[in-house]
Formats: sequence, structure tokens, C-alpha cells
Amino acid sequence: MTKEHVFEIIFGTHSAAGRRFDICLIIAIFASVSVVILDSVTLLSPQYHRYFYYAEWFFTLLFTLEYVVRLYVSPKPKVYAFSFYGIIDLLSILPAFISLLFPGANYLMIIRIMRVLRIFRVLKLFRYLQEANTLFRSLLASKRKILVFLFCVALLIVVFGCLMYLIEGPENGFTSIPKSIYWAIVTITTVGYGDISPSTPLGQTLASITMLVGYSILAVPTGIITAELAQEMHRERHLIHCDHCDRSGHDLDAKFCNHCGTPLPPKEVES
Amino acid sequence: MTKEHVFEIIFGTHSAAGRRFDICLIIAIFASVSVVILDSVTLLSPQYHRYFYYAEWFFTLLFTLEYVVRLYVSPKPKVYAFSFYGIIDLLSILPAFISLLFPGANYLMIIRIMRVLRIFRVLKLFRYLQEANTLFRSLLASKRKILVFLFCVALLIVVFGCLMYLIEGPENGFTSIPKSIYWAIVTITTVGYGDISPSTPLGQTLASITMLVGYSILAVPTGIITAELAQEMHRERHLIHCDHCDRSGHDLDAKFCNHCGTPLPPKEVES
Amino acid sequence: MTKEHVFEIIFGTHSAAGRRFDICLIIAIFASVSVVILDSVTLLSPQYHRYFYYAEWFFTLLFTLEYVVRLYVSPKPKVYAFSFYGIIDLLSILPAFISLLFPGANYLMIIRIMRVLRIFRVLKLFRYLQEANTLFRSLLASKRKILVFLFCVALLIVVFGCLMYLIEGPENGFTSIPKSIYWAIVTITTVGYGDISPSTPLGQTLASITMLVGYSILAVPTGIITAELAQEMHRERHLIHCDHCDRSGHDLDAKFCNHCGTPLPPKEVES
Amino acid sequence: MTKEHVFEIIFGTHSAAGRRFDICLIIAIFASVSVVILDSVTLLSPQYHRYFYYAEWFFTLLFTLEYVVRLYVSPKPKVYAFSFYGIIDLLSILPAFISLLFPGANYLMIIRIMRVLRIFRVLKLFRYLQEANTLFRSLLASKRKILVFLFCVALLIVVFGCLMYLIEGPENGFTSIPKSIYWAIVTITTVGYGDISPSTPLGQTLASITMLVGYSILAVPTGIITAELAQEMHRERHLIHCDHCDRSGHDLDAKFCNHCGTPLPPKEVES
Repeated sequence: MTKEHVFEIIFGTHSAAGRRFDICLIIAIFASVSVVILDSVTLLSPQYHRYFYYAEWFFTLLFTLEYVVRLYVSPKPKVYAFSFYGIIDLLSILPAFISLLFPGANYLMIIRIMRVLRIFRVLKLFRYLQEANTLFRSLLASKRKILVFLFCVALLIVVFGCLMYLIEGPENGFTSIPKSIYWAIVTITTVGYGDISPSTPLGQTLASITMLVGYSILAVPTGIITAELAQEMHRERHLIHCDHCDRSGHDLDAKFCNHCGTPLPPKEVES
Repeated sequence: MTKEHVFEIIFGTHSAAGRRFDICLIIAIFASVSVVILDSVTLLSPQYHRYFYYAEWFFTLLFTLEYVVRLYVSPKPKVYAFSFYGIIDLLSILPAFISLLFPGANYLMIIRIMRVLRIFRVLKLFRYLQEANTLFRSLLASKRKILVFLFCVALLIVVFGCLMYLIEGPENGFTSIPKSIYWAIVTITTVGYGDISPSTPLGQTLASITMLVGYSILAVPTGIITAELAQEMHRERHLIHCDHCDRSGHDLDAKFCNHCGTPLPPKEVES
Repeated sequence: MTKEHVFEIIFGTHSAAGRRFDICLIIAIFASVSVVILDSVTLLSPQYHRYFYYAEWFFTLLFTLEYVVRLYVSPKPKVYAFSFYGIIDLLSILPAFISLLFPGANYLMIIRIMRVLRIFRVLKLFRYLQEANTLFRSLLASKRKILVFLFCVALLIVVFGCLMYLIEGPENGFTSIPKSIYWAIVTITTVGYGDISPSTPLGQTLASITMLVGYSILAVPTGIITAELAQEMHRERHLIHCDHCDRSGHDLDAKFCNHCGTPLPPKEVES
Repeated sequence: MTKEHVFEIIFGTHSAAGRRFDICLIIAIFASVSVVILDSVTLLSPQYHRYFYYAEWFFTLLFTLEYVVRLYVSPKPKVYAFSFYGIIDLLSILPAFISLLFPGANYLMIIRIMRVLRIFRVLKLFRYLQEANTLFRSLLASKRKILVFLFCVALLIVVFGCLMYLIEGPENGFTSIPKSIYWAIVTITTVGYGDISPSTPLGQTLASITMLVGYSILAVPTGIITAELAQEMHRERHLIHCDHCDRSGHDLDAKFCNHCGTPLPPKEVES
């Protein structure tokens, strides 16, 4: 088996072997994340901790092997090592080794969760790309509108939070401006924990205004993204050009240009 | 009354008798579900339990009769018995009989609720079909986009849950990663019970980010479904057929088929 | 001043006097509702109750006078008396008189709130009609889709509520199925009071599913209404017909038919 | 350096110096707001209060200098002084000076937050204008629809609040109609603090209806804004001008002006 062959299996998704490798990797990732999650359940821990410990090292060695092979077969190992996925791959094995050096490094456990991010790499399998692209292009196209919106929300949160701090004061739980801003975020996003809530009539009036504002402006990002998405889907449909009369905007199922009758180029069918 | 006649009444919705049967069935379903619900109210139970018990058996026998008749008149009883509605019909009578064998089987009571699912069968009555179809086609068309979205949400929930577990820790109620993930779901969906809420400044900062993320990404599925629905409704409106070449999907103001040049039938004005 | 003249002032909105009457009525309605609201504040009550009592009777007599005049000047008093607004007008004065007969009839106070509904009548003033019509037509057009959606939500609420009743049981606050259904509504609508919340791991898992379902299906009614509204606005724009070639769908600012060059009928400008 | 030159730097955004000035101003605004926020954290206060005090006066003098220079270089100082930004600029320095006269005027601290509003002025930098304009035009176009919607929501809130006051009464926390209206707002906006929640079965039934109504009508403003935004973006895209007759708004695939027949300029493909 040549280096190119292994590269095709590990990095590619078109060959049968490559697809099988991806599926095994997904299962391993899910299993290792499940181990991390179950290990944290305090009730299970004392009893089963030993098995989780072994499983953890099994997955660490597995992913270390995968990382080394990826480095080895990559035509440009440095490019891979410093790519997004290369760093994720490294981060998913590092914490276990670090915990050997510093036995108390439980806080690095979280980095193991990063493994789940590696699952994005195999998304190619599901041919989700086109959909993700449409979504991503829509978000990118409305980037500036969304930034303007988020800036307005941030300003509203700061203003409402500070007003509440002045109205309710530390005696009602609003002990500082950051805490009041936390309350404003809880309220504007309509989460509403209730751990801090206004008790004075004036505070409740301001809280009511905050809620109604949060409730109303929720419509704005939805409107932005929906309008962009609709346009993006419209654009996709309009990418078919008639070579003869240069007319675009044909229906998805059009076989002839509805302007000059020239046959349109065949389209790949979306499944 | 022939077998076909009874089949027409029980399974069909076009004859007057069939429609009357459907209405009676709906009433019986609602009544039996109400009995189950009211029976659970502890205040009413001791006093009226006897009546509920009788009512329960009355409906069980009624639905048993219905099930037997359906099996009998069905041209292919096996197909019916293993169809979705056939299984629901069986599940709606089984629990009562099982409770005779095992007097403590109160936990099967929930299956009786399944009866309410049978109401879908008579929805045909209300000519809801076309609307449900549009809705269903839209959801199906955006299936992959929604899966990509749900996958991103799941990843965010796991990542935020684990981070909170590390930041707040068991002493603030985040006793395990599954519990932290539960908190993350409560927060990202903007439900916000408040049974677990962050108490450290760092935890509240992370919670704020979680909320804002949840608030913002709510716009994405709405955008997806709206854009699909708009397209689907657009497509529906374009169901004008050319009688000559059998092509549909003409523009609203088209007077000639853009496929073969045949004049299109005049359109009724939408009211 | 003739009867017709008074009718024009009280029921009409086109004359200057009619508009002035409407404005006075709006102010009186707001003032009387404010009295009802302020009267309920227990802190203010003992001290100012007397003034509220006088104010209450002042408004009652005012609205009685208005009701009598409306009945008198109406060409068909019976039609007015049994119309929606006629009943609201009567309901807004009845409670005060009934409270004379039965001094303890405080529970009728709420009917006085009905007065605020009379404000709808003067909405004509603001020329909101066209917008309300578009909104109303959209909701009506998507009536069946929304009913199908609400039916699905109702089913989900019943199913999730019953499951929670079985899983958590009376010892965790889910004392009956109706209470569990209340919890399911609180959760699916993402309100999340936290007065009842799951405490067992299985219950929290089911609650997480409930939340994610509620979060996701929120997109469906938004999609339905948005798509309908967009279509409605599209339709409005397309109501202009060319008399010559019978082509519709012209731009809002088109002066000539873009098909045959015939001048289009002049359009009323929307302000 | 002439007066015009300074004006160009302070008020303009096109020159390199002007852009550098804007960036410095943004940093100063963020820093001064951070000082106000951090100063309120009671844990930090006793220890670091002195440094915050000095920082506060540093920023006050800086913004005073900026205000004076703006007044001096402005061609029409009065117009600037009474403009929106002129007032904000004044309000951002006044509280510090007032606090010298009245040492207890801590409540004016909030006005210092107004400084953050000055950041809007430099938004021009980011070319956000076009997006903000589209957003603003959409909101303005749907102004009347949104007002009708808000009026309906206000009515629902008053009616539900009053009903709850009658059903639950002061013994369950609904001590007055304003408090009940506060509860109705918390519920309809799906915030759900849980500080006041119904305890009687009838109250919980009404609360369920309130939640479902709030959940459903959230779709209406989203629909309004989305439909408007989609139309607005549609309109933007149609900004192709005919050089001959100066007519815009041609279809995306139009090759000739549908007004005078002049060929349209070729369109750049949207990337």
C-alpha cells in the first residue's frame, strides 16, 4: 500500500475504503466523547471510573496513531499540522499526555471535547456541502446587517442594564453593573432564569419595556436571514444561462430557453 | 349490508355515513382521552374513580369492537394490522387488557393516549391534506439544511455545557456534564427554568454568550423553513398546465405555453 | 342639529367634528381604564378610593349617555344594539349599575376593561385599515395550515405532558396529567417559569427533547405567516391590469404596460 | 493647521487623519465606559476606586476638550450644539462636573453611559450605512402594520392581566392589576421569570392560553419585517437605470428598457 493510497483513504471521501474509514472515525469520536461525558456523572464515577480510564487511554492512543499517520502521509505535513483540523487533532490527544505530567490537570478534560469538532471533516460524506454553502453564503451576505443589529442589541443591553442598576440597586440583587447587564441579557433574549428579577414597581415597568423590546427585535435577524436565504435560493435557480440569447433566470426544470428556444445545457440533478 | 359497504363507512370519508362514523369516532377518542386525563387528577380520583373505571372499560370495548370490525372488513387484514394506524389501534386497547393480567400496570396508561393519534386518520375530512402536503414537502426539501443546523446546535450545546461544568463545577449545581448539557439546552432554547443557573461572574459571562448565541441562531431554522415554504407556495401557484405539451410552471402572466406556444387556459382570479 | 348630523359625528370619521369626538372618546376610554387599573393597587386604594369611586361613576354616566345617544341616532337601533360594538358598549356600563344592586359584585370589574375594546372602532382614524386587511387576509389564507400546526402542537403537548407524569410522578411536582400538560405548555412555548421542573435524569432528558422540539417548531408558524404575507404583498402589487392586452403584474410605478405599450390606469398613491 | 483642516479631521471620515481620529475616539469611549462598569463592581471598588476616579477625570477632560474643539471648528456652532450628537457630547461630560457641585450625585453616572451612543457617529467608517438604510426603510415601511400589531399585543396583555388578577387574586402574588399586567408581559414575551406564577388550576389554564397566544403571535412581526425586507432587497436589486429615459426597476433579465426600448447596460454578475 503506497503512501498515496493511505492518503486517499484517510483524507479522501470518494473511495469505498475512505468512506469506511470516515465512518469508523465518527464512531470512535462519538464513543470517546460519551466516555468523557459519562465519566463526569458523579454517581457512576466511583464504581466505573477504572473502565472509563482504560477506555480514555484506548481512544487517546487510537487518535495519536491517526494523527501520526495523517502527518506521515500528508504531502505537506507542515500545512496539515497548522491547519484548523490539524490543530484540533493535536488538541484532542494532548490533554491525556499532559495529565501524565501533571496529575491534577483535570481542567484540560474539556479539550478532549474538541474531538467532536473533528466530525465536521467527515461531513463531506453526507453531501451536506451544498446546503452548508447556501447557509454560509447567506450569513456572509448579511454579515454587515447582522453586525449592525448585534451592535444595537449590545447598546440596548448596556443601557437597560445600567438603568436597572440605578433603579433597583444592590438591595434587590442588582449588585453591580455587570450583574445588571447579565440580567438585561437574560431578559432581552427571553431566557428569564428568575435568579435576579425586579421587585420595585419602577423596575418592573422597565423590565416590561426590556422584554417587549427583546420580543420585538427578535424579528429583525430572522427577517435578515430569511430574506437573504430566499434571495440565495432564487439566485441558485437563476444561475442557468442560455448560451444563445444570454438570458438567465430559467425555471429549474426548463429544457429550452423560454426566450429564443435554444436548448439549455443539461443540469446535474439534486437528489 | 355488505362487507364492502362497511369498509366504505369505516375507512372512507366520501360517503355521508362514513363522515358520520368519523365524527363519532373523534368524539369517542376525545372523551376517552379526557377520562384518562381527569382520572389522574388526585383530588377527583378517590371520589369519582369508580365512574372513570367504568368509562374506561366502555371505551376499551368500543375501540376493541372497532379494531375487530376494521380487521374483518379490510381486504388485506395483515396489511392493516401492520400499518401505522393498525398498530396505534391495537396499542389503544392493549393496555386495558394487560392491566387485567397485571393489576399494577398503571404505567401503560400512557399508551391509551396514543388513541389521540388516531384522530389524524379523519383529518382527511377537513381537506387539510393540501396544506399538510405543502408543509411536509417544505420540511423535506430543507431536510439537509435543518440537519446541518441541528448538528451545529448539538455541538454548541455540548461545548457550552462542558465549559460550564468546568467553570461553575459541582458546588454551584452543575454536578455532572449531562446536567450541564441539560442547562445548556434550557438556556439555548431560551426556556430558562432557573433550577440551575450560574453564580460565578465567569459563569454568568459564558451564560450570556450562550443566550445570545441561542437567540441569534433561532433565526436560522425560521429562515430555512420560510424560504422553502415561500418557494413551495410559489411552485404551487405555478401549477398551470399546458394542455398541448403537458408542461406546468408557467409564469403568472403567461398567455402562451413557453414550451410549445399553445395558448394557455384563462386563469381564475384568486380571491 | 338634526339626527343625521349627530349620527355623522358619532359614527363617522370623515368630518372634523367626528374626528374630534373620536379623540375625546379615546381619551375617556384610556382615562376610565387607568382608573380601574390604579384602583386595584392596594397601596393607593385606602387613601384615594373615594376619588376613584367618583371618577368611576363619572365615566359610567358618560358612557351611558354615549350609549343612549348612539341608540337614538342610529337608523336601525336594533342592528346597533346587537352588533359587536353595541354589545361592548353595553357591557362597559352594565357592571357599574349591577354593582348598585349587588354591592359585592367586584368580579364584574373586569367587564369595564371591555371598554378598551371600543378603541378598535376609532382605528379607522389612523387609516390602519389597509395594513390590517393585508394582515388579516394573510392569517385567513393560512388558516388551515395554522390549524394543522396548532393541532400538532396540542398533540405534542399532551404526549410530552403524559410522559412526564409517568416519569417524574407526583413526588416531583407533577401531581396530575393536567399539571404535567401545563408544564409541557410552559416548556414548549419556551416560557420556562421554573415552578415545576424535572429533577430525575430521565425527566431532564425528556424535558431537553421537549425544549428542542418547541424551539424548532416555532419556525413553522413564522414560515407560514411570512410566506403568506410575502405572497399577499406580491399580489397587492400585481393587481394592476392592462385593459388592452389583459396583462397583470406590472411594477408599482409602471406608467405603460410593458407588454403592449398601452398607458395604465392612474393608481392612487399610498402615503 | 487651519480651522477647516481640523473640521475635516474631527467631523470627516474620508481623510486618513480623520479615520485615525475616529479610531482613537472609539477606543477612548470604550475605555471610559469600561471604567464606569468596572467601578460599579463592589468587590473591586474599595481597593481600586482611586484609580477609577483618576481615569474618570482623565476621560472627562478629554471629552471636554473634544466638545470645545468641535464647537470651535464647527461652521455653525449652534446647529452642532443642538444636534443629537451635540447634546450627547454635552451629556457625556456634564455629570462629572455636576458631581463636583453635589457630591452625592451618583445617580447621574448613568448619563456617562450615553458616551457609548457617540460611537454611532463613527459607524460611517464601516460603510454600514447602506445596510442600516435598508433595515430602517423596511421598519419604516411596515410602521403601521407593526403599530397595529403592538396595539393588539397591548390589548391582550391588559385583558389577560386583568383576568389573572380576578382568578388568582392577591393571595397568590397577583396583588394588583399593574402587577398582573407585569406577569402578562413576562408570560406573553416568553421570558417567564417565575417570580409570579399561577397556582390555581383555572389560573394555570389561563396562563397556558396566554403562553400559546404569545408563542403564536411572535410569528406576526417576524412575518411583517421579513416580507418588507425581502421586498426592500428586491427593490435594491432593481436599481438598474436606463440611461435614455432614466427609468429604474427593470427585471433582472431585461435587456431593453421596458419604457423606451433603449438597450440597458450589461449587468455585472453578482458574486
